[in-house]
Amino acid sequence: MPQPLSAHVVAAHLERVRKNAPLTHVITNDVVTGFTANVLLALGAAPAMITAPEEAGSFAAIASALSVNVGTLTSTQAATIRIAVQAANQANTPWVLDPVAAGVLPYRTELCQALLQQHPAAIRGNASEIMALAGQSAAGKGVDSANQSDQAIDAAMTLAQTCGAVVAVTGEIDYITDGQQVIAIKAGDPLMTRVTGTGCALSAVVAAFVANCDTSDRLTAVASACAVMAIAGQQAAAKAKGPGSFVPLFLDNLFLLNADAIAEVLE
Amino acid sequence: MPQPLSAHVVAAHLERVRKNAPLTHVITNDVVTGFTANVLLALGAAPAMITAPEEAGSFAAIASALSVNVGTLTSTQAATIRIAVQAANQANTPWVLDPVAAGVLPYRTELCQALLQQHPAAIRGNASEIMALAGQSAAGKGVDSANQSDQAIDAAMTLAQTCGAVVAVTGEIDYITDGQQVIAIKAGDPLMTRVTGTGCALSAVVAAFVANCDTSDRLTAVASACAVMAIAGQQAAAKAKGPGSFVPLFLDNLFLLNADAIAEVLE
Amino acid sequence: MPQPLSAHVVAAHLERVRKNAPLTHVITNDVVTGFTANVLLALGAAPAMITAPEEAGSFAAIASALSVNVGTLTSTQAATIRIAVQAANQANTPWVLDPVAAGVLPYRTELCQALLQQHPAAIRGNASEIMALAGQSAAGKGVDSANQSDQAIDAAMTLAQTCGAVVAVTGEIDYITDGQQVIAIKAGDPLMTRVTGTGCALSAVVAAFVANCDTSDRLTAVASACAVMAIAGQQAAAKAKGPGSFVPLFLDNLFLLNADAIAEVLE
Repeated sequence: MPQPLSAHVVAAHLERVRKNAPLTHVITNDVVTGFTANVLLALGAAPAMITAPEEAGSFAAIASALSVNVGTLTSTQAATIRIAVQAANQANTPWVLDPVAAGVLPYRTELCQALLQQHPAAIRGNASEIMALAGQSAAGKGVDSANQSDQAIDAAMTLAQTCGAVVAVTGEIDYITDGQQVIAIKAGDPLMTRVTGTGCALSAVVAAFVANCDTSDRLTAVASACAVMAIAGQQAAAKAKGPGSFVPLFLDNLFLLNADAIAEVLE
Repeated sequence: MPQPLSAHVVAAHLERVRKNAPLTHVITNDVVTGFTANVLLALGAAPAMITAPEEAGSFAAIASALSVNVGTLTSTQAATIRIAVQAANQANTPWVLDPVAAGVLPYRTELCQALLQQHPAAIRGNASEIMALAGQSAAGKGVDSANQSDQAIDAAMTLAQTCGAVVAVTGEIDYITDGQQVIAIKAGDPLMTRVTGTGCALSAVVAAFVANCDTSDRLTAVASACAVMAIAGQQAAAKAKGPGSFVPLFLDNLFLLNADAIAEVLE
Repeated sequence: MPQPLSAHVVAAHLERVRKNAPLTHVITNDVVTGFTANVLLALGAAPAMITAPEEAGSFAAIASALSVNVGTLTSTQAATIRIAVQAANQANTPWVLDPVAAGVLPYRTELCQALLQQHPAAIRGNASEIMALAGQSAAGKGVDSANQSDQAIDAAMTLAQTCGAVVAVTGEIDYITDGQQVIAIKAGDPLMTRVTGTGCALSAVVAAFVANCDTSDRLTAVASACAVMAIAGQQAAAKAKGPGSFVPLFLDNLFLLNADAIAEVLE
């Protein structure tokens, strides 16, 4: 039975991120780089998008966390990702996988499968992606899920048990699991699917939240990252006239988010 | 003599796009990826920017339409474009060419000339670009046109006849032709030229509009894509204080656009 | 002793940029391309992001200025930069260096050191980057400075004397020097550090301001570019609720900026 997440846990994780301003190394797709950086900056993290194979290894070693997203994978980027992940592991830097469109395209699916062996701290995807990674037949449509998030709970638990990561399946309801417990977050708004990058940026936020975090707190850290994005999004959608006015409101809300606003939505 | 476009035709094409949510494969320049994705999402299409040579072929085959823009062409991207266009043709997926700065830089001009042989469903460019593709001497300044759109009507008709595409020349007035008929759209606002990507995003919107569309309706589909962008832009510019506030208003308008708003501007 | 900059000098440089609409060739990191283009367009310059080694040389030769930023350097981009800088020098086109994270990562630090020999018209960086380029030990944290801008005044003067460029160190106070005189600009707002690309975009604006400018006016041209961005940012921050609403306000302010607004902040 999925558990709720208490507002004060979310507020404490957010406070920790703002205090530490974790240097977050982001290797992501070229559609969402700017938006992702702005989301991290609004939350108080310090993003750096270092993308060359020549640099990614030394940077991953000094970063506080690494986020890897295969949305516009190229062969150079695949090389960069392998180097960065290896360096992160050597430095005990936690890293996060966002398997965009895994299951739809073989090239990236193979890379993601290989990366599962490299001890990700967390994996964040939609239902179709998580099901595909867990070896279940899924129904992705391009980069979007054709499955509801609750269809992927079992896949997420299996995946978490197999590779030791906290797995987040996001959708209308977000489910976050370490393979034993499952946390459910019901927040957000459908308008968030009409803006590019909300899911991809969340994966980078997950990285910022698992930075400098005890392994034992990782489950609630990942869930708090999901909660923070969903809450800021829900409150932005309530005021927005459409996806254009949503974006400034969303970034402002991330910047201004406090314990009261978190409690208002979660409880 | 250019013909006007009736509001109800535009509204019908827009309704069709919203209903089908066409999976639109976009290979574009790295300045406008995020904005282009947001424009497509606001209109109800499903964008996917798949850019690797390893993936573009299989994705073009499952997409409903493909849009190709050479704004920041690299040799890898040129390879990707050739593969994607070939796969799109094999799958009968319509594809659209945006020949950014054709005529100014030889490398991309040659690629665009070669692509003209590959049966584009539509071509969208400014006057200088269309004139250059048609073999006329043009006067592009960087990525901007130094010619008025009406100077390029003959070039557009010639190009449409030669390669079988619907050709759209956009500018203060947009002209859209299948080589026989010419549709003129007088809408939009000069402020749109002070925001990057309005033209590039339009080319992706053209792809979404020619997806799942009978060949016989292609002329009005392309013209409707131009109309939708120009109308949303004109109404956003009327409220905006500058190019910064224009963007959220524009995306909101695309999201909210209905038959009344279309009729108000076109009639 | 740093000198202030008079408002009418800034207004005159801005007027010149708006009148000439300089074709500004920008080779920058993939996080800030769209924002940078929008900043230049808002100010009345004509940006073009031409990134292929096959095209960068011929384009740099026809552009009015070139801006080079190594924020997401790759080996292909390094090749493009070398070609573009050489072509710019051959055509007497002024070019600007933004040495993002120089001193932190060896690969880009070496490229930046080599580029110092290629006669940049201007260099714009944060304190840690300028100190690193001048051979002083700095304390960059990722892409952010860990030094205050006044710590880098000596380094900036040394660097300006050595390579003949106007050097701008930006931070809470901006210092701009030609190796003899130092101009100080106290404007801006901390909120600007919570939005990605304000520094990177400034470097492109510096390029637009040194385009078509006498060498003898270069110091005030670079300082005026800094002033324009800081003033528009300060006034946007005064109205913004957070970094999300800041961006539209900032771009509108750049578009609307006039002599009165400049005088209000600088005097």
